[in-house]
Amino acid sequence: MNKKIVVIGGGTGTFTVLSGLKNYPVDLTAVVSMADDGGSTGVLRDELGVLPPGDIRQCLVALATSDRLMRKLMNYRFSNGSLMGHTFGNIFLSTLEKLTGSFDEAVNKISEILRLRGQVIPATLCQVKLVAYLTNGLVLRGQNIIYGSDLAKLKKIALEPKAEANPKALRAIREADLVIIGPGDLYSSLIPNFLISGISKALKKSRAKKLYICNLMNRAGQTENFHPDDYVNKIEEYSGARLDNIIYNKECPPQRLLSRYLNEGERLVPTAVIRNKRYLGDKLIGRKLAKSAKGDRLKRNLIRHNPDALAKLIVDKFL
Amino acid sequence: MNKKIVVIGGGTGTFTVLSGLKNYPVDLTAVVSMADDGGSTGVLRDELGVLPPGDIRQCLVALATSDRLMRKLMNYRFSNGSLMGHTFGNIFLSTLEKLTGSFDEAVNKISEILRLRGQVIPATLCQVKLVAYLTNGLVLRGQNIIYGSDLAKLKKIALEPKAEANPKALRAIREADLVIIGPGDLYSSLIPNFLISGISKALKKSRAKKLYICNLMNRAGQTENFHPDDYVNKIEEYSGARLDNIIYNKECPPQRLLSRYLNEGERLVPTAVIRNKRYLGDKLIGRKLAKSAKGDRLKRNLIRHNPDALAKLIVDKFL
Repeated sequence: MNKKIVVIGGGTGTFTVLSGLKNYPVDLTAVVSMADDGGSTGVLRDELGVLPPGDIRQCLVALATSDRLMRKLMNYRFSNGSLMGHTFGNIFLSTLEKLTGSFDEAVNKISEILRLRGQVIPATLCQVKLVAYLTNGLVLRGQNIIYGSDLAKLKKIALEPKAEANPKALRAIREADLVIIGPGDLYSSLIPNFLISGISKALKKSRAKKLYICNLMNRAGQTENFHPDDYVNKIEEYSGARLDNIIYNKECPPQRLLSRYLNEGERLVPTAVIRNKRYLGDKLIGRKLAKSAKGDRLKRNLIRHNPDALAKLIVDKFL
Repeated sequence: MNKKIVVIGGGTGTFTVLSGLKNYPVDLTAVVSMADDGGSTGVLRDELGVLPPGDIRQCLVALATSDRLMRKLMNYRFSNGSLMGHTFGNIFLSTLEKLTGSFDEAVNKISEILRLRGQVIPATLCQVKLVAYLTNGLVLRGQNIIYGSDLAKLKKIALEPKAEANPKALRAIREADLVIIGPGDLYSSLIPNFLISGISKALKKSRAKKLYICNLMNRAGQTENFHPDDYVNKIEEYSGARLDNIIYNKECPPQRLLSRYLNEGERLVPTAVIRNKRYLGDKLIGRKLAKSAKGDRLKRNLIRHNPDALAKLIVDKFL
């Protein structure tokens, strides 16, 4: 029987991991954070009262085996008119949710249309907001606000209201052979999963090996000057589970890209001095570079993991 | 081999005919007018520069054999927010057209997803506008404007710029055993098809029997006080083809519905005195009543043909 892998996250990092792993004979499940409220997703949440479609859409596209047209369609972003900034896939998910009254059913229907290899599970089906409490008493409400704020004075991060986990997510985590966390934005994409009631407990109880894939870049004001250990400590603190292994990148991206990041105060996560058996370094930088689409309300990263290199390393070393 | 039926029109009348006929073992093709520029369709044409999706969507839904959810999805209309007034199916078609650069390809892809029984063919792939020239020198531009105007002084109606027929539409008409025209709005849904270069010629050359299904109601200021003969004369004038037969309704709809129409100046097409071998009357009023959806930018008819009675009559008498 194929090994069961659960990828916990949301956003581009999870897309990358899934895209690589779907080429291997493994049983893949994505458990996706539901705190997103920026861009097209935020507008749809506000206007239609739906659950956030954006991260789910990305994971669906990653695992789709239907023709290229359908995958391009899901990610098609309108660049003008009243639909400007929306991706078609977000509208697709939200319409199905409005029609059926169930986000789960919406995800299932699109999974069927895209002939999914694996499954995509919203971590919770509750409407939640990410909230950050700072030591100076300031409270930041909303993932999009938090993503753009300075978190140097972060006291704690929470979901409001309290959210129950999707039972399917708990079952997948409990039955997994390998749970992969990240890569992904620490406070926006990864930690929100562990704030959902039940996820941490399932993770602790699971006999799965727990693997964290460390981010490539540190974000200014958020994970500024973080070493891989700092990420690991935060994830272990919020998830309550010990990570068995950590994958990090040892390759230097092109200088011209690094300069662009430097302008925004973003630097490579420093990995030169790691001497710890839990850690495994490799050359993991992607050669294909993502571009910001016209009309996109969000900035997109340009330095990314190589999905194939990442998947090969995971399969070779951890299965 | 199954008999080949081509239904020429666009709008709700064509939806009704297709919905009824799809339950019979016939080879069904809808040739759809591309002059629509009102409601959600008009907004998408203006904002995205796409061909009009609305009538095509209705025909696709009529011929869909996929589950009910997919058909409901195609017709789902947003009632608030930036998507207000749009139907999901219109957005679906327009996005596929933007993505592939081909409306034909968009229709094919959705036909595949909806598992179409039959085919839906845009009458032309040119961007056209319906234009009405009045005897007082006034020129009305746009189907939506014309639909809402008084045409008592109509001199002629035209498409601008000149449009070439979709070769697939010509082939379907030439190879048909039966061509059904209408029911449908005379100036907005039926005649625009015959204004496309090539359609009339194909119709005249076709060995198919030509059948017109007469409207139930006359529209104030447009087909006011029309007898079935007046419709027939207009269609024969614009199509250049002689109609072999005409189906008309002999049943009186509920008085409360008629009163509602009367308030808008709309009356039943008078059929009491028809004595002509070409004409065939039957009880054809539908029992299910269509409702105007919340957020819909257009008014919808409430007195409709019964698709099953219509289809049975067609199959019994003309195949």
